[in-house]
Order: sequence, then C-alpha cells, then structure tokens
Amino acid sequence: MSNGELSSLFFLQMAAIIATCRAVGWLCHRYLGQPQVVGEMIAGVLLGPSLLGMVAPGIEAALFPAETKKLLYVGAQLGVGLYMFLVGLTFDRDEFRASAGPAAAVSIGGMIAPFAVAAAMVPWLMGMPGLFMPSVGTAQAALFLGAAIAITAFPMLARIIHERGLAGTRLGTLSLSAGAIGDAGAWIVVALVLASLGEGAGIAIKAAGGGVAFALVMVLIAPRVLAPLGGMAARRGVSEGMLALTLGLFLLCAWAMDTVGMHAVFGGFLLGTAMPRGVLAKGLRDKIEPFAVTFLLPIFFIYSGLNTQLQVLGQMNLIAATLAILAAAILAKGGACYIAARLAGETHDTALGIGALMNARGLMELIIINIGLQHKVIGQGLFAMLVLMAIVTTLMATPLFALTRRGRTAEPAA
Amino acid sequence: MSNGELSSLFFLQMAAIIATCRAVGWLCHRYLGQPQVVGEMIAGVLLGPSLLGMVAPGIEAALFPAETKKLLYVGAQLGVGLYMFLVGLTFDRDEFRASAGPAAAVSIGGMIAPFAVAAAMVPWLMGMPGLFMPSVGTAQAALFLGAAIAITAFPMLARIIHERGLAGTRLGTLSLSAGAIGDAGAWIVVALVLASLGEGAGIAIKAAGGGVAFALVMVLIAPRVLAPLGGMAARRGVSEGMLALTLGLFLLCAWAMDTVGMHAVFGGFLLGTAMPRGVLAKGLRDKIEPFAVTFLLPIFFIYSGLNTQLQVLGQMNLIAATLAILAAAILAKGGACYIAARLAGETHDTALGIGALMNARGLMELIIINIGLQHKVIGQGLFAMLVLMAIVTTLMATPLFALTRRGRTAEPAA
Repeated sequence: MSNGELSSLFFLQMAAIIATCRAVGWLCHRYLGQPQVVGEMIAGVLLGPSLLGMVAPGIEAALFPAETKKLLYVGAQLGVGLYMFLVGLTFDRDEFRASAGPAAAVSIGGMIAPFAVAAAMVPWLMGMPGLFMPSVGTAQAALFLGAAIAITAFPMLARIIHERGLAGTRLGTLSLSAGAIGDAGAWIVVALVLASLGEGAGIAIKAAGGGVAFALVMVLIAPRVLAPLGGMAARRGVSEGMLALTLGLFLLCAWAMDTVGMHAVFGGFLLGTAMPRGVLAKGLRDKIEPFAVTFLLPIFFIYSGLNTQLQVLGQMNLIAATLAILAAAILAKGGACYIAARLAGETHDTALGIGALMNARGLMELIIINIGLQHKVIGQGLFAMLVLMAIVTTLMATPLFALTRRGRTAEPAA
Repeated sequence: MSNGELSSLFFLQMAAIIATCRAVGWLCHRYLGQPQVVGEMIAGVLLGPSLLGMVAPGIEAALFPAETKKLLYVGAQLGVGLYMFLVGLTFDRDEFRASAGPAAAVSIGGMIAPFAVAAAMVPWLMGMPGLFMPSVGTAQAALFLGAAIAITAFPMLARIIHERGLAGTRLGTLSLSAGAIGDAGAWIVVALVLASLGEGAGIAIKAAGGGVAFALVMVLIAPRVLAPLGGMAARRGVSEGMLALTLGLFLLCAWAMDTVGMHAVFGGFLLGTAMPRGVLAKGLRDKIEPFAVTFLLPIFFIYSGLNTQLQVLGQMNLIAATLAILAAAILAKGGACYIAARLAGETHDTALGIGALMNARGLMELIIINIGLQHKVIGQGLFAMLVLMAIVTTLMATPLFALTRRGRTAEPAA
C-alpha cells in the first residue's frame, strides 16, 4: 500500500470510526440514559470481528486491512496517553490526601476484596486454555485479575459526581477519594505485574526502578519545577508555546515509561498530576481535550474492539467462567464498597450509590486489559471476558445510581 | 518493528519534532522578528538529510527509520488537511466577492506574471535532469511552476493584516482580496495539473469531474445544508457532537478528494469555506486549531524536510537555476503586484507593502510542492529549489513590510 493509499484509507477509517462511536453513543444516551463512553465501548466491539467481521467480513477486511493496524495502534496509544494525562490533570491531590476514616475504609474494602476473589478464582481459570499466557505465574495472574476487578472508571465517577452537584456532599467526597485511592492502588499493582514480567532480573529491575524513579520525580520534584508555568499562564494566558512545551513533556514521559517496560499511560497520568492547577490546567484541557476525546480516543475503542473476539467464548466452561468473573467483579467491588460504607456508618442509599459508582470500570478497564494483552499477560479468551465485564458493570452504574437518588429533587437532573 | 516499539519511537520522534520546531521558531522570532511558520519551515530542513542526515547520519537513521515514514506521512496529511480546513474556515467569502477594481488588477497581475515567467523558464529547466519527471509535458510543467510562483501565504497575510490593525484599511482590503483570488486561481491550476496527469483519459476525467462536482456541491449546496448547524451552535454552543460531525465531514471530504485523484487539502479547504460563520466557526477553530497547529502541522514540516535534499543542488547549473527561479518568483509575484497596485493608483508605500505580503509563500508553497513531488510532477532537484524559494520569500516579507510601515505609529507594534 502506497503512502497516498494509506492516508486516504485512514481518512475513510476515521470517518467510519467517529460516525460509529457517535451513533452508538447517541443511541445509548437517548434510549438507555447512558454516558457517551458506554456507547463507544460497544461501538468498538461492533466494528471488530465480533460483529462486523462476522456478518460482513469483506467490509471489515476492506476497512481495516492488516497494514493499517500499526497506524491505528499508534493513534490509540496517543489517544489513551493524552486521555490519561487529562485524567491526571483533573485528579485532585487534596481529595486524595484528605481521605481519612470512611474513605479509607471504602477504598481498602474496594481493594482487598477484588484481590481476594481474584486469588480464589485464578487456579480454576488457569486450567482453561487461552485465558492466561503460559509464561505467567499464579501470583502474577492473581494480581493482574485483581487489578482488573479493582479498577474504577475514576473520570466517569468524577463527572457523575460533578454533574449531579454532589461534589461537596458526603457521598461525593467519599466516592471521589475512595475511587482515587483505589485506582492508584490498582495501577501500582499493574505496574508491579508488568515489571515482574521482564525476562530476566535485569528487565524487571529496569521496569521497577525506572517506574519508581519516574513516579518519585513526578510526585516530589516536577510540581515545583513546573510551578512557574502556572504563574505565567495566570498572567498571560495559555500560549501556543506553553501548549507545545506541555505536549513535548507528555511525549517524553510517555516514551520514557514505554522504554523502561511500563506503559505510556503511566507517563501521561503522572505528568498530569504534576502540572500546576488553575488557569494553565484549564487552558490545556480546553486545547487538548476536544481533539483527544473526539478524534483520538475513538481509535482506542475501535482498536480494542478489533482485538475482541467474543466468539472464542462459545463453550460452556468459558461461558461459566465469564459469568463467574462478572459476578465476582460486581460483588467484590460494588458489594465490598457497599458493605465497607455501611460499616463506616453510611445510610443504605449512600452506600448503594457509592457501590454503583465504584463498580463502573469503563475505559479504565479497557486500558488495563489492552496492556495485559499487549504485554502477554492474558490471552484472547480472558480479554473477551473482561471486555464484557467492563461493558456490563459500566452499563449498570447509571440506572443503579439513579435508583439510589430517587425522590431527591434538590440536585440538577443532569 | 513491533507495534509497541513503533508507538514508543513515535513518542520520541514527536518530542524531537515539536522541540525543534519550537526552538527554531523562537530563535527566528527573537533574533529576526520572523513569524513562527518561518522557523518551522527551517526546522524541517534542519532535521532532514540536508543537515542532521549529513552531520549525524546515525541519529537521523535512529530517529526517522524508514518504517516510521508511513506514519509521519499520514500524520502530515492529517495536519495539513485540517490546517487547510481552518484556512477555509477563516476565508472571507465577502472579501472574495467584493474585490473589484484595484484588487482585481493586483490579483490578475499577480497571476499572469508568474505563469508567463514559468512558461518562459520551463524549456530551459526541462533540459536539466531531476527537475521535472519524464512523464510531465511542457504545458503541465509550466502550469505547475506558475502556480508554485503565484501562490501566496494567504493565512500569514491575513494574520499580518489583522495583527497590525490594517483590516479595514485600503492596504488591508486590497491585499486580502487579491491574495484570496490569487490563491484560489493557483489552487485551481494545481488541480488541473493533477487531473491532467492521470494515465489515460478515464483517470483525468474522474479527477476533473470529481473535483468540479465536489467544488460545486461545496460552493452551492453545502453552505445551505450546513446552515442549521450554525444556528444550533449559536443557541447551545459548540457541543462535542458538533465537533465530531465536523471532523467526520472533514474526513469524508479529504477521502473523497484523495480518491478521485486530487488531494485531501482541497476537501478540507472547500469544506472550511462552506461551514457557517459565527459561533460555530469560532468554536471549531478553538477546539481544532491548538492540536492541529502545535502537534500535527509540525509533522508536515518535518516530513517535507525529510524529502528535502539541498545537496542535490551542488552543481553550477543547478545553483544558477535556483537563483533564476528565486529572482523570477520575487519579480513576477512581488514585483508584478507592486506594479499592478501602482498602475491602479496606489502610493509607493502601499504598493510595496502589498508586493511584500503577496510575495511570501510560506506553508502554502510547501503544500503545493509536496503534492507535486508525491504525484510525480517534480523531482528532488526542483523540490529543493522551491523549498529554498519558499523560505527566502517568506523570510523577506516581514522586514520588507516593516520598511513600508516605518514612521507610522498609529498602528499597534504587534
């Protein structure tokens, strides 16, 4: 395929990707009251081998030939890296620090239970072919599955809390801080698994050492080094030069984390948390988010969908495993958070609301399992199971949460 | 190269590309008073085989291996397509229509002279190997070179006019309308050349017919079909859905123009001119421009620079040809516009200002000659000559223009 043919096909692919994501997103919003992200998760599966590839393999092959996969992969990595940078940018360090008492209880409950059920299930799952890769040990498998169950769609949670005007309430503060702690914990575990996967001690040490060194720099040093940028932005607005500098830093952080054997998303996210807040953060968001979320992120959903083969689950034992993982995820994350909140003295409705929000995994789950597939932790089978788990738990969140808020008219309808 | 290695290298490439473009842009602005675009044009040449490839071939090969060229090509096409969409979005249809009298004289002068000198020079240039491709006829060569000499950096011209507060003045109106007419004419000629290049009548008819049909739809029908979007944006702001719809339309237009054998930039530009003005145009600009100009467009400058081999010009006759093309370009565009403005009754200073601005070719020239190289109209030699011509004529504009404005303190310094 010549350069000209490739770029021309890329334009057509992207038109199909954006149109499908928007159309399915609109349908899910209009008829199911679901946020856009749910539609895009489903759109990815629809354009992949699970639907389009099955009913119209000719169109699928013409629209997504093998030669374009590399291009889509890079676009997806860029989109998801920038998205995690934006998540980091809105991550409230104070909420994270101020999370004492009940938040700690909820987040610890929401962390321990997933890893416990993962450890319990892994010996059974490892007996089925195609779920975990042969080179992965039991501990690594349990940690990865635990993280996949423990993760929360933190950005979606934050948006729901803010849209419903719950940001200052007990429910809001609790969910946000518990979600932040839980997600940080889950990502650290994923990082540990990736670091431990390196063949030979040298590669593992490079990944772990590089990751820890990078995280320390981003948490302890970068905020101070970057602080003057915040002052400049406050005085003069966010210039094109500041945007270019930020994008350059983002690219270097993403590259560094890829290079040590971690993943670009860590670089993006940690840089986001280290950027000065205020005018700069808002300006960067306004300039990066529209293109990243509307153009680049759909590439990730479609790339993930192209990897999703739901038909591999067409056996009784795999269907049983799928349902078991789904039930375990709902009980060990949503259920555990509910119980922890109740034990910490919250009402039934508040606890149920927290459980519903913490149980939604959304895009975060897709990011983790795509990393797992790419780094050869999990196989096509478990990948497909976890895609289904991500979609179902995210679909559940909005109606469940609405149920706990019934009769409360003080908050905006959003 | 695995997907992971490719995306990791892409992050590093992009960091180097953005850093170089910004650094050279800053130096050119700080020490030469030049706009950012001049720096980026030079940065592209510096990172290519003309400098980096010569002094540090190892770094050049490691940073831009052949496997990444396709990726950079697609990124460059996307950047330049979106850029032309933004140019179309700011293209003032009223200025174009209201250009009677002197503007017509200037723009006709600025159109006829370039094609005349191109026709005069082409027989000589075609005698040198590597300037035009063997399949190109004399008429096609003269038309293409004429368009390359006639083109004006319309977006740069518009920015200078607006930044200096000259938008309502005689100089401002004249330059803007003459630039718009001239550029439209030059692009039509490029389109004709591309259409005529198709092997066999069928391909030429497809390109010409497809191009004309598309242009008619975009000029006559699309503005009316798209008008309700403008009203929606005025009432409710520019939503994510509207941005997605616009990007989807852009991609389809770019794909359509690529597919008939024209080029994606025509699709982007014509769609831009057809979009409703007001809140929608401003909102789309705010959401697309930062990422397109700061992240994607530098890929185009670097891709163009990777194709630029100034060392192929190391022969006396080629150096003579380069100087002749440069002199012809300055006289036939800047000089002709000056004379036309004088004949139409303008003062010496106004006419000189118009000539200086019309003579700057900037990014527009790079777009045209990259299309020429890609569609096998011109070879490496003429490409390198025209890169030099583009840089020199763009470098000239700001100091020349400042000279004509000396002693006028009424306008902001900008």
